[in-house]
Amino acid sequence: MFDLYAFPTPNSLKIPIALEELGLDYRLHVVNIRQGEQRHPDFLALNPNAKVPVLVEHAPTGERMVLSESAAILVHLAESSGRLLPASGVERARVFEQLFFHASALGPAFGQAGFFQRLAAEPQPLAIERFTREAHRVLSVLDGQLAHRPFVAGTTFSIADIAHYGWLWRRAFAGIELDDTPNIARWFQEITERPAVQRAIKRLEELAPA
Amino acid sequence: MFDLYAFPTPNSLKIPIALEELGLDYRLHVVNIRQGEQRHPDFLALNPNAKVPVLVEHAPTGERMVLSESAAILVHLAESSGRLLPASGVERARVFEQLFFHASALGPAFGQAGFFQRLAAEPQPLAIERFTREAHRVLSVLDGQLAHRPFVAGTTFSIADIAHYGWLWRRAFAGIELDDTPNIARWFQEITERPAVQRAIKRLEELAPA
Repeated sequence: MFDLYAFPTPNSLKIPIALEELGLDYRLHVVNIRQGEQRHPDFLALNPNAKVPVLVEHAPTGERMVLSESAAILVHLAESSGRLLPASGVERARVFEQLFFHASALGPAFGQAGFFQRLAAEPQPLAIERFTREAHRVLSVLDGQLAHRPFVAGTTFSIADIAHYGWLWRRAFAGIELDDTPNIARWFQEITERPAVQRAIKRLEELAPA
Repeated sequence: MFDLYAFPTPNSLKIPIALEELGLDYRLHVVNIRQGEQRHPDFLALNPNAKVPVLVEHAPTGERMVLSESAAILVHLAESSGRLLPASGVERARVFEQLFFHASALGPAFGQAGFFQRLAAEPQPLAIERFTREAHRVLSVLDGQLAHRPFVAGTTFSIADIAHYGWLWRRAFAGIELDDTPNIARWFQEITERPAVQRAIKRLEELAPA
């Protein structure tokens, strides 16, 4: 059994998608980041980095493992179950390449573009331009890769698709549309139609207050 | 045999350290990012994301694999050699947790702090404050972890230490000192004293024009 601490954020969504795809049971616990609950002492004891999601895995022996970093959780779930991550070879390397491309490039670009467009206390035009341009650049790179592959890391659905999906689901925050990236648009539609993805979105969105 | 395309950057340094630690032979090729060589068509054919480092691995069969994303290269080298990454269990999960904490938090914070402090065409005070504060925040999180562990992911030296080392080696770019993070200062000194790390820094720095 798993306990998942989350909110309807791009990074949180990765974990219920993986759990639903793998058919694993989990309890969802809300951490309302709009109210700063990620900085409460109880949550900092789980993750001193003050970020959702956090997964708590309960072993049959009673031991528990607390794990943060959404992509690290994806790797752990995939390796534990032997699914969603090729065991070896170039397709395995491509999954990690995409996971780190997401973590270091697409995720930060979307997050900072949205912040400076919407949330900064004063306009910072160079910062808006820098991160909005970077968000479009990384999208263009990903679109070029999806022109040659059905999934982001190759021929099979993997945790790399799950990783990229969260921010593309919340792309409006960064002012992103998919009109100029037809390969991403095709891929996004296919992932959205997966029943596990729909179940995950429904459960996660129920965490947000109306 | 490996070909490594690199420049003396925080992310490039990870790969020669890993190759030296593993005792693997490699040829180093300069990609002068100060002169924009990462956007030359020959380099974009290796990595459409236009970033160093890129590793080209030549198999005995003549096949080659081209891999980008420094942390994905670290994972591939560690898994191929069976070293620098625990095979299973909580220590393996902690290595991935740190690799993604580095890729999504420490690396972007240091990079953007340095950019807005030093390179932006016009002052963007809120951006300077945002990323400088974030760089200090993630350092504080890492320092807290290193108070309880000899290495960033636990009791053994791993690719997670190699990942964090590059930006701490280049911390002056982000205006960072280690005076207030004694555990990081202790760890940094220990990693710096490793002979493989010293060999890697020497070879990488030779790529930069005088």
